[in-house]
Amino acid sequence: MNKSVLHTDDPHILCLAKLLNGFQPILFEKEDLIAYDCDGFTLHRHLPKAVVFPETTEEVAAVVKYCHTHQLPFLARGAGTGLSGGAIPLNGEVVISLARMRKLLEVDLENRRAVIQPGYVNLKLTNQIANKGYYYAPDPSSQYCCTIGGNVAENAGGAHCLKYGVTTNHILGLEVVLPNGEIVEFGTNGISDSPGYDLVGLFTGSEGTLGITTKIIVRILKNPEGKKTVLAYFDKVEDGSQAVSDIISAGIVPAALEMMDQTAIEGVENGGYPVGHPRDIEALLLIEVDGIEAGIDEQIEEILTVCRARNVREVKVAQTEAERKRWWDNRKTGFGAMGTISPDYLVQDGVIPRGKLPQVLSRIRKISQKYNLRIANVFHAGDGNLHPLVLFDANVPGESERALKAGSECLLACAELGGTITGEHGVGIEKREEMRYVFNDEEIIAQTNIRAVFNPDNLLNAGKLFPTPGKCIEVKQV
Amino acid sequence: MNKSVLHTDDPHILCLAKLLNGFQPILFEKEDLIAYDCDGFTLHRHLPKAVVFPETTEEVAAVVKYCHTHQLPFLARGAGTGLSGGAIPLNGEVVISLARMRKLLEVDLENRRAVIQPGYVNLKLTNQIANKGYYYAPDPSSQYCCTIGGNVAENAGGAHCLKYGVTTNHILGLEVVLPNGEIVEFGTNGISDSPGYDLVGLFTGSEGTLGITTKIIVRILKNPEGKKTVLAYFDKVEDGSQAVSDIISAGIVPAALEMMDQTAIEGVENGGYPVGHPRDIEALLLIEVDGIEAGIDEQIEEILTVCRARNVREVKVAQTEAERKRWWDNRKTGFGAMGTISPDYLVQDGVIPRGKLPQVLSRIRKISQKYNLRIANVFHAGDGNLHPLVLFDANVPGESERALKAGSECLLACAELGGTITGEHGVGIEKREEMRYVFNDEEIIAQTNIRAVFNPDNLLNAGKLFPTPGKCIEVKQV
Repeated sequence: MNKSVLHTDDPHILCLAKLLNGFQPILFEKEDLIAYDCDGFTLHRHLPKAVVFPETTEEVAAVVKYCHTHQLPFLARGAGTGLSGGAIPLNGEVVISLARMRKLLEVDLENRRAVIQPGYVNLKLTNQIANKGYYYAPDPSSQYCCTIGGNVAENAGGAHCLKYGVTTNHILGLEVVLPNGEIVEFGTNGISDSPGYDLVGLFTGSEGTLGITTKIIVRILKNPEGKKTVLAYFDKVEDGSQAVSDIISAGIVPAALEMMDQTAIEGVENGGYPVGHPRDIEALLLIEVDGIEAGIDEQIEEILTVCRARNVREVKVAQTEAERKRWWDNRKTGFGAMGTISPDYLVQDGVIPRGKLPQVLSRIRKISQKYNLRIANVFHAGDGNLHPLVLFDANVPGESERALKAGSECLLACAELGGTITGEHGVGIEKREEMRYVFNDEEIIAQTNIRAVFNPDNLLNAGKLFPTPGKCIEVKQV
Repeated sequence: MNKSVLHTDDPHILCLAKLLNGFQPILFEKEDLIAYDCDGFTLHRHLPKAVVFPETTEEVAAVVKYCHTHQLPFLARGAGTGLSGGAIPLNGEVVISLARMRKLLEVDLENRRAVIQPGYVNLKLTNQIANKGYYYAPDPSSQYCCTIGGNVAENAGGAHCLKYGVTTNHILGLEVVLPNGEIVEFGTNGISDSPGYDLVGLFTGSEGTLGITTKIIVRILKNPEGKKTVLAYFDKVEDGSQAVSDIISAGIVPAALEMMDQTAIEGVENGGYPVGHPRDIEALLLIEVDGIEAGIDEQIEEILTVCRARNVREVKVAQTEAERKRWWDNRKTGFGAMGTISPDYLVQDGVIPRGKLPQVLSRIRKISQKYNLRIANVFHAGDGNLHPLVLFDANVPGESERALKAGSECLLACAELGGTITGEHGVGIEKREEMRYVFNDEEIIAQTNIRAVFNPDNLLNAGKLFPTPGKCIEVKQV
């Protein structure tokens, strides 16, 4: 894509190309831009003005300074796997792709930290340090391709975040290019507490609205000595839900505690990694315990006892690493496998206090009936993080709109049950209006005022995260 | 203190008294105010204008609104145990004591959270839920008297924060009175992830400069099944330091890993809880492991092996809970017991990457020689959080100043070794200038701009946390 002559008269594109020394590609033609018109949330599509691929912090800063000076809207993009539309160029932004900033800069085992560039792929880090006995804990299902920079922007979670916490619990320091092009560092070189305000925490999960992360110091963990995985099939979803509560109440903190309902099981069993789960059960639990070898068996015993007390139909422990991996591969296809039972799906991301699991599942069933759309549930039961998957067909007029409404109503149910509207996918453009379910005007204004400190012209990723008074989300047919 | 007639002509004091319905005491006479002129950092003393004792969020909001309207400076105070001067009324503030807001509002075991008022004493929470098998993890040495509101303001740590994290890792939600008197809530009812910016994280550790916390949702933990404690005596401090690194490198995460040097041992052995530690050793390690019963012995064995490989003189495991408690009581008097060997002491709170322990201890020895002041070290070795205790006599002219300089130089050493200037005590007024060791001007301005979002008139706790350009800390003789 290294074009020595750019076929455009747009002075900004010519200037940006020059700024990047002509060595980097710059995309500006429609057929190239189309790959950047949405992310994992596909119900909105907007073409960017251009896409650039800086390789260094200084190049990012130069592009940002140019945009700031010329008041061009811009945003950063990782792998584009985000599920709430955070990387969609709503305003025809200049997209700053961080795909080429993908170096592992340092591994410091003694202080259990690694320094990476934002475009570094999540799973690569664990693969890189596994032979030394270490790993990076946050494990979104997209970890084989999503970038840690994107994980920081969205404060990504994953199945094992029940025990180990979401991304923000693993970020020690950040280098950030502010929206005016200044380069700053927050957090202090891998020491987890930093004096002053917790700006590392503030930037993590700010969905790309405060600055562009160009270097990340992450915490790495020693591999647990042992790991065991249990699969439990329940005839009744209520029994499965109650088993979740019982396990936690017993004082066990599993590394992961996942649930799938009947519709979700139908999907994953039709998908690329079938396990042979019975299709007539209402709920499946996938439970993993890790830690010191000696303590694991005892916890597994306790889990088996809880499941049996809750009328489990069948419960078994993975006998080999291959079996364990097969169960997880099956679970991790949970979203994608929906394609086998529905042309389109919308994934939601509500959170409830664990104890409210039966109530929320019952409300979701009612929402499904009301909108006449199937809703599958694949979710992190242990931390009450639901993923209702609303199944629809975008080619049937009105179904997209109904799916969006059903999804929104699921989030309202979560909020009303004392929970919230996103656990790990972020607000993006998808859930802007739903922010009102959990924040009043003062609380939203406090947040937009903070945005204004860093991003006063709102050139960086405008239109994300916060509701616009009196404006509804406009749904575009895909 | 319920004065039906107030002997003052000050209209603000009369109005504030009226605002609180005359039921609450208001202190405004010098002999009453003197108890509020400093906190645990005693090198500055300033009298407040008045002290009020609201009992409800609405009363706090009413006082704040009054102060805001009349542009009176004000600040909040918990138990006044802070070590960096965060609660000192530098500008003759109206002090809003939260001592009467000390209710435990809710315990929700199913979702592992408790809701408390800010004046609730840290240790009371654990005592209250212990019989149900739960506890609140952050355990500053002052936990028998410090309040959780103060812990939130300072992001307090403690011996067991190595494994369980500091206060911010245990705060799920906050109700806050903003400096204009508005009441807002951040975090969502005990769900740990919240959409939008992480304002719970931002407020935690903001040292009382962004708002006044009036309700706190904390995470509570299930008691570990078992717990064992090791005491190890080292002839050489280098061997003790190396043992710390070895334990962590072995993949063990102890619940606590504490170190005391020879001078600190002299203090605690002279103090109220002597254990009979030998006084001729250079270092003592106090190591606690907790978790699943079955795994503990294995880890203890590994710790003993590491200590022996590092030439330990003697190493032993506590045989009874009484013995374990005696060791901890002895350790927790570490600061106060300095009174037995010195009329005054200044405690510092630097952090270094664990691997730099030998280097920093050697630099502290040199600083001690340079300023001709003894420096004791009692600290959380496992997370590299040092507490150099600079011993001095405030009655000897010039010693206070030398102690401050020596303390500051210890922090510079930490910063230069890749660490930072506070791990758990906060910046307050003590370390304002030392903020420059770790932040450049842009990074400090970003933070004061955030303060301006919430606290635009800087009426709330002004003069804390950030350096004033060109102004040095003025030392007042006690």
